[in-house]
Amino acid sequence: MDTSRLEAFSDGVLAIIITIMVLELHDPPGADFAALWHLAPVGLSYVLSFVYIGIYWNNHHHMLHVTRRVNGVVLWANLHLLFWLSLVPFVTAWMGKNHFAPVPTSVYGVVLLLAAIAYWVLQQVIIAAEGDHSRLAEAVGSDWKGKLSPVLYLVAIPAALVYPLVAGAIYTLVAIIWLVPDRRIERLVAAEDAVRRPGESGRR
Amino acid sequence: MDTSRLEAFSDGVLAIIITIMVLELHDPPGADFAALWHLAPVGLSYVLSFVYIGIYWNNHHHMLHVTRRVNGVVLWANLHLLFWLSLVPFVTAWMGKNHFAPVPTSVYGVVLLLAAIAYWVLQQVIIAAEGDHSRLAEAVGSDWKGKLSPVLYLVAIPAALVYPLVAGAIYTLVAIIWLVPDRRIERLVAAEDAVRRPGESGRR
Amino acid sequence: MDTSRLEAFSDGVLAIIITIMVLELHDPPGADFAALWHLAPVGLSYVLSFVYIGIYWNNHHHMLHVTRRVNGVVLWANLHLLFWLSLVPFVTAWMGKNHFAPVPTSVYGVVLLLAAIAYWVLQQVIIAAEGDHSRLAEAVGSDWKGKLSPVLYLVAIPAALVYPLVAGAIYTLVAIIWLVPDRRIERLVAAEDAVRRPGESGRR
Amino acid sequence: MDTSRLEAFSDGVLAIIITIMVLELHDPPGADFAALWHLAPVGLSYVLSFVYIGIYWNNHHHMLHVTRRVNGVVLWANLHLLFWLSLVPFVTAWMGKNHFAPVPTSVYGVVLLLAAIAYWVLQQVIIAAEGDHSRLAEAVGSDWKGKLSPVLYLVAIPAALVYPLVAGAIYTLVAIIWLVPDRRIERLVAAEDAVRRPGESGRR
Repeated sequence: MDTSRLEAFSDGVLAIIITIMVLELHDPPGADFAALWHLAPVGLSYVLSFVYIGIYWNNHHHMLHVTRRVNGVVLWANLHLLFWLSLVPFVTAWMGKNHFAPVPTSVYGVVLLLAAIAYWVLQQVIIAAEGDHSRLAEAVGSDWKGKLSPVLYLVAIPAALVYPLVAGAIYTLVAIIWLVPDRRIERLVAAEDAVRRPGESGRR
Repeated sequence: MDTSRLEAFSDGVLAIIITIMVLELHDPPGADFAALWHLAPVGLSYVLSFVYIGIYWNNHHHMLHVTRRVNGVVLWANLHLLFWLSLVPFVTAWMGKNHFAPVPTSVYGVVLLLAAIAYWVLQQVIIAAEGDHSRLAEAVGSDWKGKLSPVLYLVAIPAALVYPLVAGAIYTLVAIIWLVPDRRIERLVAAEDAVRRPGESGRR
Repeated sequence: MDTSRLEAFSDGVLAIIITIMVLELHDPPGADFAALWHLAPVGLSYVLSFVYIGIYWNNHHHMLHVTRRVNGVVLWANLHLLFWLSLVPFVTAWMGKNHFAPVPTSVYGVVLLLAAIAYWVLQQVIIAAEGDHSRLAEAVGSDWKGKLSPVLYLVAIPAALVYPLVAGAIYTLVAIIWLVPDRRIERLVAAEDAVRRPGESGRR
Repeated sequence: MDTSRLEAFSDGVLAIIITIMVLELHDPPGADFAALWHLAPVGLSYVLSFVYIGIYWNNHHHMLHVTRRVNGVVLWANLHLLFWLSLVPFVTAWMGKNHFAPVPTSVYGVVLLLAAIAYWVLQQVIIAAEGDHSRLAEAVGSDWKGKLSPVLYLVAIPAALVYPLVAGAIYTLVAIIWLVPDRRIERLVAAEDAVRRPGESGRR
């Protein structure tokens, strides 16, 4: 089974997640700048989550670009990732509307942590499905970002209960770390594409 | 007419169904764990429905993978299935918010039953459209899951009116039965793909 | 410019329209059958609109299947159609919640009429863009359904203000007339596909 | 990396943005024409934003049609554009519900300005990624529309605070200017397609 429909479905879900978050930006009760300013925490929370979903889409895109075939286990590992990401709009609204209060900010980190674990599981499942010559295994390499992020979340989750702003800073830091897409995959793809036959490119 | 646009539209609808359910997870009125705990029934109901829509997407994916051509009747049988699935967010919210009360839990089962019947109808209509050499007919085989599920729903629907938790357990059981995708289709596809010409693979 | 991205975008919008209508099926304030029964008019209105959007998707699918190339005018004629269809969830909710009251039922017909006109315009614009040898022109033929529907809407719109149920019956009648997809296009496509070269099929 | 998944994701997000705006068209509290008339400002605001998102989709479509390859920077420049466009439903509702009051009408222009800047950045980033022989660079040419629009927004944003209707007229004027898609790109594509080999067309 090829990856095209898995990509299409994931793109659909991620596009909806990233867009319905804005539904929580209810038009403020007033037509002045003060009313708009009142939305600042919800807006900030929205920006952070928009960037996170963007990162996931970006990395998912890169990951599936070097994946050739998927099986039933991969489909479910992918749905598992989408499940945790689907909770992002909920925790985004909860955190924003409560002005980064301790518990919502901590729960936000829990959802990020579980999404990160789900992403890692998906990666391992694809590598297992593809066997020794997996291009993804080569491309992932040491994966220091994937290893560092959960550690940072594990620091932020309890920290949020005491210093929510510290947790917010950690979430922002992780986003910045990830903003640069994995150059190694891009380089590998570029190198391979250079030697691919034109006929093959029609496959995707 | 090939299956690509049918798949694209179905993917779109299923992606939206699976994602808008989360809109019912309104941010709780409070910023503590008690407020979050209050959402547990809605959350549980969401998880169950997420898995069900995931199963339908997964099986739909497998089914259309072995389908070569569709006609107008197939398009409508597919829309009929999507109609019943589109009611899932509604019954999910109703059941969750009423803490698995008898009537909503029973109606949830009715929607699952009608979706299961619609899936079966779609399958038959595709097989009829493809004629004797339908790959889907071979792949479906005895289809014991497809035969067992409606029976279990028919038990759960009246049971819910007296013991809603029993019905909930049955819905969960059916989900677990289906979680394993149909290995036979996968095996068949793998075998056929091995002998397919590369030129043909561009068709999908 | 080929039709693939136009189809993808239209599929996306139609999938969202058909699915967000269900968001108006708010979970009823109660957990018994009476509460569910109270939703009957909204549900009926939803079923009617689901079928209408399904018909539009179906016919749009058929129309673009015999279209080879699109230009800027076609893109805008398509957006114009999507605009009127995007108002369907709004009029569906208004008509349903007011139990098929005269004015909402009449306005529902106005939206259907404008969508029908927009569909006709799109069809003409595609034929004009393709020139004399347009496959669509051949396939459309006499287009009696496309001519009859606006007439029926023009009867129903004023009738709704006095006898809303008559208008509802006319809307249902039009839906039934359209439920059968245009066999002529299907037959033409089947005939042409039979003589197409396999290499060409990769184009879609 | 080819453009197909970038297009698919962007189409998904734009389709959702253009459609969820209609969710702000809540069914009016009444079943007569007066209730409907009350929605006129929200409806007008919706029409304007629908046309704007349509223009962005249309131009995005044209832009990516002449783009061959994308890299990580392009993906993020695209997400940046989608971010500002995702705020359109929010400002549309705010402006409409407040009957084109000064501050919301001004903020609407700010979002349009930032989206225009993001579009320009995306265009430059694609040209930079493609190098000297970028077809997009040729196609864009003098880009007088892209240069004029921000100037008009910069006039409208402060003007809205005093004469909101003047700002509304300017937004409408910009939309009309853009409604005609860039003929130069179309002509270039038509010319190139005429000399392309049929085998190549399967690539998209």
